[in-house]
Amino acid sequence: MPVHASLLILKPSLATTFLRSSLSSALVPFPLIRLRPFPNPRNLSFLSSAASSPTHSLVSSSGDNVGGGRSGAISPPPIEDSVQKIDVNPPRGTRDFPPEDMRLRNWLFNHFREVSRSFGFEEVDFPVLESEALFIRKAGEEIRDQLYCFEDRGNRRVALRPELTPSLARLVIQKGKSVSLPLKWFAVGQCWRYERMTRGRRREHYQWNMDIIGVPEVMAEAELISSIVTFFKRVGITASDVGFKVSSRKVLQEVLRCYSIPENLFGKVCVIIDKMEKIPIDEITKELKSLGMSEEAIKDLLQVLSIKSLTKLEEILGAAGEAVADLKQLFSLAEKFGYSEWIQFDASVVRGLAYYTGIVFEGFDREGKLRAICGGGRYDHLLSTFGGDDVPACGFGFGDAVIIELLKEKGLLPELSLQVENIVCALDHYLQGAAAAVATRLREKGQSVDLVLESKPLKWVFKRAARTNAQRLILVGNSEWQRGMVSVKILSSGEQYEIKLDELE
Amino acid sequence: MPVHASLLILKPSLATTFLRSSLSSALVPFPLIRLRPFPNPRNLSFLSSAASSPTHSLVSSSGDNVGGGRSGAISPPPIEDSVQKIDVNPPRGTRDFPPEDMRLRNWLFNHFREVSRSFGFEEVDFPVLESEALFIRKAGEEIRDQLYCFEDRGNRRVALRPELTPSLARLVIQKGKSVSLPLKWFAVGQCWRYERMTRGRRREHYQWNMDIIGVPEVMAEAELISSIVTFFKRVGITASDVGFKVSSRKVLQEVLRCYSIPENLFGKVCVIIDKMEKIPIDEITKELKSLGMSEEAIKDLLQVLSIKSLTKLEEILGAAGEAVADLKQLFSLAEKFGYSEWIQFDASVVRGLAYYTGIVFEGFDREGKLRAICGGGRYDHLLSTFGGDDVPACGFGFGDAVIIELLKEKGLLPELSLQVENIVCALDHYLQGAAAAVATRLREKGQSVDLVLESKPLKWVFKRAARTNAQRLILVGNSEWQRGMVSVKILSSGEQYEIKLDELE
Repeated sequence: MPVHASLLILKPSLATTFLRSSLSSALVPFPLIRLRPFPNPRNLSFLSSAASSPTHSLVSSSGDNVGGGRSGAISPPPIEDSVQKIDVNPPRGTRDFPPEDMRLRNWLFNHFREVSRSFGFEEVDFPVLESEALFIRKAGEEIRDQLYCFEDRGNRRVALRPELTPSLARLVIQKGKSVSLPLKWFAVGQCWRYERMTRGRRREHYQWNMDIIGVPEVMAEAELISSIVTFFKRVGITASDVGFKVSSRKVLQEVLRCYSIPENLFGKVCVIIDKMEKIPIDEITKELKSLGMSEEAIKDLLQVLSIKSLTKLEEILGAAGEAVADLKQLFSLAEKFGYSEWIQFDASVVRGLAYYTGIVFEGFDREGKLRAICGGGRYDHLLSTFGGDDVPACGFGFGDAVIIELLKEKGLLPELSLQVENIVCALDHYLQGAAAAVATRLREKGQSVDLVLESKPLKWVFKRAARTNAQRLILVGNSEWQRGMVSVKILSSGEQYEIKLDELE
Repeated sequence: MPVHASLLILKPSLATTFLRSSLSSALVPFPLIRLRPFPNPRNLSFLSSAASSPTHSLVSSSGDNVGGGRSGAISPPPIEDSVQKIDVNPPRGTRDFPPEDMRLRNWLFNHFREVSRSFGFEEVDFPVLESEALFIRKAGEEIRDQLYCFEDRGNRRVALRPELTPSLARLVIQKGKSVSLPLKWFAVGQCWRYERMTRGRRREHYQWNMDIIGVPEVMAEAELISSIVTFFKRVGITASDVGFKVSSRKVLQEVLRCYSIPENLFGKVCVIIDKMEKIPIDEITKELKSLGMSEEAIKDLLQVLSIKSLTKLEEILGAAGEAVADLKQLFSLAEKFGYSEWIQFDASVVRGLAYYTGIVFEGFDREGKLRAICGGGRYDHLLSTFGGDDVPACGFGFGDAVIIELLKEKGLLPELSLQVENIVCALDHYLQGAAAAVATRLREKGQSVDLVLESKPLKWVFKRAARTNAQRLILVGNSEWQRGMVSVKILSSGEQYEIKLDELE
């Protein structure tokens, strides 16, 4: 009916009479085109002349939709906020944590936290976004090359932190004399790297760090390893599953001194050596040569790095050096702490971070299937390279990825499921308020309650109760409610009874 | 002695004899220039000819430090990883969490988590970095304009999430039919924005979110508000401190329909109206006009928005519309849940996010000093605008900033201090291993222990015990240890006794 249509467009007020009924039927609020009724004048009586002024412009001057009184009614409006099929996956290399994964993450992090606290450590955190300068070290570290860095909208160079230690050092310097040493701090934080995703490695992981600031003695490193061993034991990992390779960067340092390798190349040499198990030995040799090391020096260095016995090391370096003294001290303390069987000397361990200066260690799986589980060491000069005082420090990083692989491998992953104490359900729609009152009462008593928010058949409710592992089902039915009672069903036993709401706990 | 100097440079092996003693005295491992001794040939005997080949090059072809055998000894090496005075503050607009702040954060987050769990909600999380497309909505939202977005190293547009809801919607779509509705999910995550730092506002905050996916009924919104009220009560905030303003976007929608405002402008109108208390009314009017609204429509709209009574609203809109029905239902449920005194109808509340479609609410302090404490509402179409099925949903966001201000204001901030159960200290340096054994025993018994890692005077130990609020001081002294005993001092009472290590718990 074309006549009617033009009537609609030009004189909408006349059309409203038979469209009025749709005013309150807008179940779907965002259809793209819709005939819009005018209000019931009685109801909008206090408003201005709107109802009697059908020529009000609809969409006018803004954008490409200029059409006076007509445009709103007949041209399709510009499509904004409309369907834009998004990628439902998290960005490449990142993870979502749906409930089942989050339960595992919380389980793991709780162990990190509880172990740290049982060692008297205090939790700290830092921004996930830091100034890029904090992470720039010229040692060719993998962590540096994979920095997730960018320019912010204010043209500042920033980076998503690849590790937590530089931020910790920054905060310690900032706190200065206001804190009393030693500090024993731990953190569990997300760290980022940017690398090509060819190896299936992620771009983010969470890392547990424990650091001791202000203790020059090896007792600190011994305490750190003890805390990791404590963690392993708590989650069921034994000394036959996992070990720690321990060395000291001072071993390397003493060798390098013999060949007069400049001290400032020390970090670089360490970073190169750390790659020994990942790239061919020829490549390592080439890189060391490019630093200016002679073939003889390289050969001797590699020979020292192959030592797996502290006695042998002592024969080579002599007993007077710090490297040997520190390591002997550590092994002696390990015995007292009770984790001797977990640790072994291995001169090839140097770790990949440029800033370590003394004892270094890494946790490894004895089957040799996985990358290092954790790693750490002493970094006595990081604070002074940042312009702070020279404060002795050591710490470790423990990622959330390899440990989960290991626990899976060993069948030690816990079965974690949602656990709700009560499911509360109204048997009739008009009793939903009553069910809400029951839920509120139970929650005030410290109980957890999954309240059924819609009218659902009992079969559905039982299915839901099974999924949430609810212990009790509480049904709010008419006849009981009249008497101030509810029905309780213990889901494990099937036991069923009525109870006064006042007595429900 | 220039002759001696040239000897040193050209024939270092001759110089080593009187420098040898410094081999193992390297207390400071990284002096910038240092004479490097050669090793004691006996100790390095298994190594190659190094000791007898004094002409090995030191630093050669790499970089600008080319000088054969001389450079390492006399030119200062290129300074790398050396002092670069860093900015000790976290990036502008971000926070560190030293222990005292972290304790408060954990206290707050624990309340968030415990309340959520007592409502049967499951915890989830998403990447802090998301594809920018997830947050792009063309409604002029503050949150959109302040997006902390950038291009990653792979030229992808990404953003640090400004809010959690879009990620949640993405994950729900991804899970699809594998999850059974309703989902009750909560998250506590960091959110970012980029704005000029003129107002002293931060660029990051943490947000507690609770969302119910799959429930079309107002019971869901009622449940959400109940959970926030539960939180407030837990931390000591009462209905005389805080209230909730509640409205429904359907109120606006019904008014806009009367004036045939195209549906696709709905989000934009809401975003403009949300700014009503922040910018002058003339500016609001101007912005609404630029969308094509007539002066009359604007005038009526503003009049409707000034309504603070549900009865009045019903007079204007009629009882048949969804807006009034939903709101009446919510107020009725609030009574059953037991939080009537906390909520009030206020048509001016629309919230600043474009995607809300139904009930909206915000928590405010009754003294009117602070910004909104939290806010939320129904967003039944967010999933479908992302290309998913249309699934009813509602949720809220609750930031960590305003609540802390409020708690401070009301004197409700808890005093949280480090609490360690034991401090363990060796009275002699050689007893440190024994102290370690004592600490290990106590930790295995579930006790927390601050182990003193250095030899310190007793006065220092007591000071530390006071700082860590240790309950017991356990001293490992020689004569007691010989007898398998340790000294225990209960620090609150001063009580002191000896106990067998085996009996220490």
